[in-house]
Amino acid sequence: MLLQKPALYTDLYELTMAQGYYLSGRHEQPATFDYFFRKLPFSGGYVVFAGLADLLELLDDFRFTKDELSYLKEQGFRDEFLEYLQNFTFQGSLHSAKEGEIVFANEPIVRVEGTVLETQIIETLLLNTLNFESLIATKASRLTQACEGRPVLDFGLRRAQGLGGLQASKAAMIGGLKGTSNVMAGHLYGASVSGTMAHSWIQAFEDELTAFRTYAEHYPDDSILLVDTYDTLKIGVPNAIKVAKELEAEGHRLKAIRLDSGDLAYLARKSREMLDNSGFEYVQIAVSNQLDEHLIKSLLDQGAPIDLFGVGTKLVTAYDNPALDGVYKLSSINGRPTLKISDNEEKITLPGSKKIIRYLNEDGTFNCDGILLNDEDSVDEIYHPYIAHQSRVVKDLTPQPLLHKVIDNGKITITVPSVQESAEYAQKRLSELNQEHIRFDNPHIYKVGLSKNLLELKTKLIQEH
Amino acid sequence: MLLQKPALYTDLYELTMAQGYYLSGRHEQPATFDYFFRKLPFSGGYVVFAGLADLLELLDDFRFTKDELSYLKEQGFRDEFLEYLQNFTFQGSLHSAKEGEIVFANEPIVRVEGTVLETQIIETLLLNTLNFESLIATKASRLTQACEGRPVLDFGLRRAQGLGGLQASKAAMIGGLKGTSNVMAGHLYGASVSGTMAHSWIQAFEDELTAFRTYAEHYPDDSILLVDTYDTLKIGVPNAIKVAKELEAEGHRLKAIRLDSGDLAYLARKSREMLDNSGFEYVQIAVSNQLDEHLIKSLLDQGAPIDLFGVGTKLVTAYDNPALDGVYKLSSINGRPTLKISDNEEKITLPGSKKIIRYLNEDGTFNCDGILLNDEDSVDEIYHPYIAHQSRVVKDLTPQPLLHKVIDNGKITITVPSVQESAEYAQKRLSELNQEHIRFDNPHIYKVGLSKNLLELKTKLIQEH
Repeated sequence: MLLQKPALYTDLYELTMAQGYYLSGRHEQPATFDYFFRKLPFSGGYVVFAGLADLLELLDDFRFTKDELSYLKEQGFRDEFLEYLQNFTFQGSLHSAKEGEIVFANEPIVRVEGTVLETQIIETLLLNTLNFESLIATKASRLTQACEGRPVLDFGLRRAQGLGGLQASKAAMIGGLKGTSNVMAGHLYGASVSGTMAHSWIQAFEDELTAFRTYAEHYPDDSILLVDTYDTLKIGVPNAIKVAKELEAEGHRLKAIRLDSGDLAYLARKSREMLDNSGFEYVQIAVSNQLDEHLIKSLLDQGAPIDLFGVGTKLVTAYDNPALDGVYKLSSINGRPTLKISDNEEKITLPGSKKIIRYLNEDGTFNCDGILLNDEDSVDEIYHPYIAHQSRVVKDLTPQPLLHKVIDNGKITITVPSVQESAEYAQKRLSELNQEHIRFDNPHIYKVGLSKNLLELKTKLIQEH
Repeated sequence: MLLQKPALYTDLYELTMAQGYYLSGRHEQPATFDYFFRKLPFSGGYVVFAGLADLLELLDDFRFTKDELSYLKEQGFRDEFLEYLQNFTFQGSLHSAKEGEIVFANEPIVRVEGTVLETQIIETLLLNTLNFESLIATKASRLTQACEGRPVLDFGLRRAQGLGGLQASKAAMIGGLKGTSNVMAGHLYGASVSGTMAHSWIQAFEDELTAFRTYAEHYPDDSILLVDTYDTLKIGVPNAIKVAKELEAEGHRLKAIRLDSGDLAYLARKSREMLDNSGFEYVQIAVSNQLDEHLIKSLLDQGAPIDLFGVGTKLVTAYDNPALDGVYKLSSINGRPTLKISDNEEKITLPGSKKIIRYLNEDGTFNCDGILLNDEDSVDEIYHPYIAHQSRVVKDLTPQPLLHKVIDNGKITITVPSVQESAEYAQKRLSELNQEHIRFDNPHIYKVGLSKNLLELKTKLIQEH
């Protein structure tokens, strides 16, 4: 469990607004909110949606304790409102994309319906969870792409943003990583855990060879020897080769060596030669040290003989883009569709209760997505949200609804998928996205259009203001 | 409490190494580890050290539960080692800089002593906590500097890295922020909480004026009206002025308006004129929207009449530098000083048990810091760590030890300071740092030198390898 008492993990204004609705007798008005993000992170072409399982659990646990209510009273909240909160649970409904779904900018990935009070009060918790986990799952997916089938492991906990490290490891698995150093993620989510030795292990012994030997003695089939504490090629690799010979004599096999500094391409090539020349073709080479998808791609482009990548800081903090700009916007109140106006056309929100339809090509790959009003059956054409007259005919494509009911009047209606199931789903879906949307640099923009009815509703509401 | 069961919030290799030490009968060897970072974040001149209070609590709670031991057994750990872990508590000692201390690169801010097993096994937890909280406290300190006395509040929870958001809000207070939107930080740490309304509040009403009026009715002395939902200057500010008049007629005062989009300098100036021309000089102007220290400085340099800043993403994720590169390195084992060699001279670690002495000028400001061997009494001169012959005479300055014992054989020996106390300490200490180390761009590098004995020990050990 992430957070046992999630109700106060929120911005104060959710509570001041909730009290305002309550005191003015407006709190039971039906409302709809959309969760979406405006910009794809990492200059990339897609996002792997994650965080739903945690969100469902947090909403299920969303209650105010006595202690919390006393605190709110000290902060000036009124007795009648606090009495209301005392029995508050989320009784609204959620429609959501599946955890692991491949999604794009401006799509209402989660639609929340209920009273305006209950839909408002969960905003911060929802944003905090979905923004971060989707961000990291996306980064992990990019790293997985870069490794071209070689395993990539999460070693980031020490540089993670505090307790965010647990969600980072979880989301990294959803995005495609094959393992983590984070033992808690292993325990709670069944992630495959790995890790062998730090430089301190080597330093703690009289010499490197004794350090390697002692480790290999206790982990004869599972040793990854860190070879760069003193001098990688002069001391580290030769010592590893000695230990590999001794292990072989006992019927075991050294698993790998790890390089954690210096020019990884050069050192990997030289180490490979030394290992191969001694007959240890089976000993793998693992590398770590400030890796990201671009560095990994560069190493592999150079032909560096690397078998396994460990990534840390750049993954778990999403270093080059450490937040997803997801927002939660009111799209209808009392059945009246609403929008927020902006000078920046891209920031005008989409009014009304909506759904997403993914249109598939004959081979099952994604052609484009359409955002439709929820009561629309199907459409023949989708329209660019801002550029007049730009449209795409979709009537001959196979429509696939992306949003599914996950909470109905406060009750979770799905079997919450495991991390492994969500990871498999993400992988399957990514295989259905054409490669030009996946590449790292200037990916082709995936088309997300609006139905004519939605576009007209938006235009009408803008004109009314 | 941050994490009830922290023992598995760790990298697997801490446990494989611990088992290796245990099985080879080496686990009780005395060891010393140093925590330090190599590079000042944000191209800045200092770091505000934070996270100590959380670390002390986490170490105090560091125990393996039955359930966790069963999990480790499934992962292949041996029975004899798991039996040892069953009763494991941290019985070592910590010397640490105070929470809120101003510290610099390469200083051993925390020294951990104990058996090699217990000092190794806490590595990840220590790094995760200190790296992140120090990072955010430092960012918050920079934001506070930029605001030149105006309050700056943390609004970042929705974009924080998951549960890291709680520590972010706490560290932000230590770094100097005056309040937060994060209600849990208010509840747990006594942080001042604030927040009024989102755009959704405005949209939920028939029109903006009704939304403002309803809010002001329930919060007559505490309303900050968000004026940019439809059109800031044409609709928002005029509506706020109407409500200010109505409040005044009832004996109340509108507190502020908030600008959350557009050109904040222009809109603040225009809004200020409109408010002043209507006689509302007392109504303050709050701004938010992707602010960081550089944007705030630019707004104030332009003379924008802003009274209060809300910062979010850029603070809580430390967006432009989202990780502090703190490391935890073995400096002695069995009384033998150790170091890690590197081609990069800056990455060679400092051997032996060490302390930090801050040398003060006559006026109490910081002159420079010296890293000394722990058994040295005092020194007359400190030396540059890599550049031969560069030294500074310190014999006429006042020495001030920076490290204090905080855990003695497993027992916390200090009264853990509150967030407010640490914030005050940080503020006091920052006032003792000369301004040229505080400025944002190309700050003057604060001198951190080594004692002659430490430098000679380092040189000798490098030559031995």
